[in-house]
Amino acid sequence: MKNKKRSIFSVVAILLVLSVVLSGFLPTDIFSQSFAETNNTFNGEAPKYIFLFIGDGMSFPQISAAEMYLGAQKHTATPEIKALDFTNFPATGVAATYDSDSFIPDSASTGTSIASGIKTGNGIINMDPQKKANVDPITRDLKDMGYKIGVVSNVPINHATPAVFYANQESRNNYYEIALQLAESDFDYFAGGGINDAEGKNSKITNSENVIDIAKKNGFKVVSTKEEILALNNTSGKVLATSPRLQDSNAMPYEMDRKAGELSLSDFVRKGIDVLDNPKGYFMMVESGKIDWANHANDAAASIHDTIEFNNAIMEAYKVYEKYPNDTLIIVTGDHECGGLTIGFAGTAYDTFFNKLEKQTMSYVEFDNILSEYKKVTAPEKETLEDILPKIKSAFGLMTATDEDAKKMPELVLTAAEEARLRDALKRSMQKKEDRDFSDQEKILYGTYEPLSVTLTHILNNKAGLAFTTYSHTGLPVPVYAVGVGQELFIGSYDNTDIYKKMASIMNIQ
Amino acid sequence: MKNKKRSIFSVVAILLVLSVVLSGFLPTDIFSQSFAETNNTFNGEAPKYIFLFIGDGMSFPQISAAEMYLGAQKHTATPEIKALDFTNFPATGVAATYDSDSFIPDSASTGTSIASGIKTGNGIINMDPQKKANVDPITRDLKDMGYKIGVVSNVPINHATPAVFYANQESRNNYYEIALQLAESDFDYFAGGGINDAEGKNSKITNSENVIDIAKKNGFKVVSTKEEILALNNTSGKVLATSPRLQDSNAMPYEMDRKAGELSLSDFVRKGIDVLDNPKGYFMMVESGKIDWANHANDAAASIHDTIEFNNAIMEAYKVYEKYPNDTLIIVTGDHECGGLTIGFAGTAYDTFFNKLEKQTMSYVEFDNILSEYKKVTAPEKETLEDILPKIKSAFGLMTATDEDAKKMPELVLTAAEEARLRDALKRSMQKKEDRDFSDQEKILYGTYEPLSVTLTHILNNKAGLAFTTYSHTGLPVPVYAVGVGQELFIGSYDNTDIYKKMASIMNIQ
Repeated sequence: MKNKKRSIFSVVAILLVLSVVLSGFLPTDIFSQSFAETNNTFNGEAPKYIFLFIGDGMSFPQISAAEMYLGAQKHTATPEIKALDFTNFPATGVAATYDSDSFIPDSASTGTSIASGIKTGNGIINMDPQKKANVDPITRDLKDMGYKIGVVSNVPINHATPAVFYANQESRNNYYEIALQLAESDFDYFAGGGINDAEGKNSKITNSENVIDIAKKNGFKVVSTKEEILALNNTSGKVLATSPRLQDSNAMPYEMDRKAGELSLSDFVRKGIDVLDNPKGYFMMVESGKIDWANHANDAAASIHDTIEFNNAIMEAYKVYEKYPNDTLIIVTGDHECGGLTIGFAGTAYDTFFNKLEKQTMSYVEFDNILSEYKKVTAPEKETLEDILPKIKSAFGLMTATDEDAKKMPELVLTAAEEARLRDALKRSMQKKEDRDFSDQEKILYGTYEPLSVTLTHILNNKAGLAFTTYSHTGLPVPVYAVGVGQELFIGSYDNTDIYKKMASIMNIQ
Repeated sequence: MKNKKRSIFSVVAILLVLSVVLSGFLPTDIFSQSFAETNNTFNGEAPKYIFLFIGDGMSFPQISAAEMYLGAQKHTATPEIKALDFTNFPATGVAATYDSDSFIPDSASTGTSIASGIKTGNGIINMDPQKKANVDPITRDLKDMGYKIGVVSNVPINHATPAVFYANQESRNNYYEIALQLAESDFDYFAGGGINDAEGKNSKITNSENVIDIAKKNGFKVVSTKEEILALNNTSGKVLATSPRLQDSNAMPYEMDRKAGELSLSDFVRKGIDVLDNPKGYFMMVESGKIDWANHANDAAASIHDTIEFNNAIMEAYKVYEKYPNDTLIIVTGDHECGGLTIGFAGTAYDTFFNKLEKQTMSYVEFDNILSEYKKVTAPEKETLEDILPKIKSAFGLMTATDEDAKKMPELVLTAAEEARLRDALKRSMQKKEDRDFSDQEKILYGTYEPLSVTLTHILNNKAGLAFTTYSHTGLPVPVYAVGVGQELFIGSYDNTDIYKKMASIMNIQ
C-alpha cells in the first residue's frame, strides 16, 4: 500500500515537473486562472474537513501589527517580523469587500457574500439587497450532503458573522430571531460567545420563549462550564457550548483579559474538532469577532493579542491538515478592515515602538470597568486626573513627568499636550452619557467610546507609532490564505463572493 | 508548425489536468511552495523580456482607492470597483518591506532589497548596513549575460528607486555621485524625470563636470524634446531621455497636471520597448515615484491619478507579454506604503464619496504655485481667505456657504470648523518658512507642506471619506502581482528580498 502511494506521488511529481518545464511553451493563463477572471472551478475530489477562519475586521494592517509586535519582543538589533503561521499558507489572494450599499461594508453583508455568494446590503443576513428572497449559506448544502457543521465565534454566537452561516434575517439586529434559527437548525456545534437577547425582550415576537430552552427541546446539549465543555466528544450529539466567562456584550474576554485556565478561542476550535469528528467529514467556521471590536475601539494592543490567538486557533485546524493533508482545506480571511489602522503616525514618522504596547496590561473594556468603579465613588466635580493616574499607569504604562519611574521610562511620560487631552477626556467621561453633547471634533476624538479610555489607547498607539482613522470599518481589501485541497483556487485578486464560489466548486455544490 | 504547437499544448494541458485530478493524493506543499518557506527556485528557461514595475509608496490602499474612484465614476446604483488591470495578473503575493533600521523603511533600502536581495539601512543604495561592501543589483548580472537594461522613473532618474538599479552609494542624497554612476554605466535606456544636482553643486567632488556632458562623452544619446524622444528606436544606442517638462524637484508632472500631448510614464515605457528591442532580450525597471510623492503630501486625488497612469504604463508591457507570452515576465509591486492612507474616516463612518475627488483639478504642487503667486502680490497682514476662495473652488471644488453654487453642491460646502482650519493654515502659509515655528500639533497638521494646500487636501479627502495618518511611509506590506514565465514563484507571503531571489532564479543568476 505504501509503495503504491509512493508510486502515485512519483507520477504526479513527474507530471508537475513536466508541466513546469513545458510551461515555456504555454499560452496565457495556464498556471492558475484566466486573466481578468478568477478561477472558480475545481475538478478534484471534495475534501472531508473544511475550515473557514474569518478574522472580523482583520486585514493586512492587523496581521502586520501582530507580526511586528511579536518580532519586536525578540529585541533583535535590527527589526524582525515573526510571521503568523497562517500567512505562510501556500496560496495567497486578495478579496474586495464592498457591499451593495457602500465601499465600506459591514459584517452582515460581507458574511453573506462569503457564506452564500451574493452581494447584499448593510446589516442583511442571507437575503438579497431588497430583503425579499432568502439565500442559502453553503453550510445548508453541506449539511444536506452529510457533513457536520460547526459555527464558532468569540463574540455572541448570534452576532452577524456566525449568523450568516445558519440564519436569514432582514436585520442583524434581530438577535432573538437569529437565535431561534440557531435553535431550530440541525447543525452540530455552536460554540464560543453567549446569546444576545436569548429571551426575546427586544424582539417583535410576543411571549417569546428563551431560545436556550428551545434549543434544549430541539435536542441540543447546552453546556457552559469548562468541565462540561472539555468533556464533549463526537458522541455528544448537537452541541451549544457557551464560554463560562462572558466579558462585554455576551462576548468571550479579550485575549489580553483572559485569565489563566479560562477557555480560549483555540480551545473551542480544538473541542469542535472532537465533536464534529465523523466519517463523512465536517465544515467549521471560526470567527474572531474580538479583533473587530478591538479595532472599532482603536485598541491596538487588544487587536494584536486577539490576532495572535486567532493564529493559535488556526493552528488547531492545521493539525488536522497535517494528519489528513489530502482531505483537508483551511481558508483564512477577514471580512473587512476595521479602524483604519496604520503602522506609522505623523508624530513618529519613520519610527515604531511596538515594545510600548507591551505596557498595556488590559483591554479598554477592563479599563472602562475601572473607570466605572471610580465614577461610583467620585462626584463628577471632584474628579482629578491625579486620582486616576496610578490606574492609568498600571493599565497603559503611561505616567506624568512627576512619576517616580519617569526618568527610567521617559518614553512613556505624557507630554503636556497629552496630559491636557486626558484632562478633557476625563471631564467628559465623568459626565453621564446622556449629558455629553459632543462637538464634531469630539465625535472624531472619542467616537462612541468612553472618552478617557479611547484617549489613552490613542496616546499609547501614537507613542508606539500606530494610528487609527475611524471607529468604523474601512474599504481596504482583505487577504485570503489557503492550504489543502483546492488551495490553488484562492490565488489572485477577486471579489469576496468568489470565496463562496470557490468553496462551492471545491465541495461540488452546484 | 501550428499543429506541432497545438500538440505540445495538448500534452501540457493533459499533464496539468492529471496533476489537478491526482492532487487529492498529494502531500503538503505540492502546488506552489513549501510551508513556512517561500519558493525561490525556478527550473525553467529564463524569459527574454523582464519588466519590473515599482509603484513607489503604493500598497493596497493606493490601489483600492484608484479602483473605487474609477468605479464611482460609473455612477452605478450600487458600489462597483473597476479593477486595475495588473491586479488581475494570475499570481499574487504579499511582501514585507521593513529594512535593517525600521519597520517603516525608505525607498533606498527597500529598493536595494528588491534589486540586490539584501536588507540594508535607511537611505543606503546597494551597500550593506555598515556601508562597507557594495552589492550588485540584478541589472549588472543581466547586462553581463547580454540583456539590455532600461531604468525608467517619473521622478529624477538619480532618485533612490531608479538608483538602486545602477549605483552603489552610502547615501541616496549623493545625487551627483549617483548620476556619475549612471553616466559611467553601460546600461541602455534611462528615461523619465530629470537629474538632480547634475552639476555637482552639492557634491563633495570638486571641479565637478556636468554629468550630462559626461554621459554624452560616454556615448549616451541625450534627448529631452518630445520629437527627439519619439524618434528613438533600437538603433539609437545608449539613451538618456528626460521629460521635456519637469514639474517639482526635477520630476515629471503629476498625471493630473499633465497637459494633453505631454509625455506620460506610459510613453516612456512604450519608447523603452522600442529602444531596448534586441534578440537577446532586456530588463526594464519602471518606477512611478509620484505615487509616493502624492501620498507624502496626503494628496489622495494625485495619488489616484498617478496610480491609474501606472496601470496604463504596465499595460504597455502587457502588450509585449501578449505577443511573447512564453518569453516575458512582468512583476508589479510597491516598495512600501506611504501616508497611511485609509478608505474610511471617523467623520464619514461607513460612507465614501469618491466623486468629490473629481472636483480636484490639480495636484497640491500646482496649488502651491498659485499660492506662491498670491503671496508675491499680497502682504501677509492683508491676506484674507475670501481673496483666495475662487482659487480654492477651482482647484478643489470647495466653497463657503455664501458661494453661488453652495445650494447646488452642499456636499462641497466648508463647515465652520473647516473654514477656521483654512484661516489658520492660510495665516501660516503667508509666513516665510523660516518664521514658522510649528507647535507639535501643527507639525501633525501640516508636516513640512504648505499649510493651506495640505489642509485643503485633508478637508477634501475627509469629505470623500478618506484619511491619512502620516507624511512618511508606513509598515504595511505590499502586494506583488506577476504574469508570465516564473509567475508561480510570486505566490505567497515573503520578504522583499525574496523578490530579488525569485527574479535571480528565474534568470538563472547564481
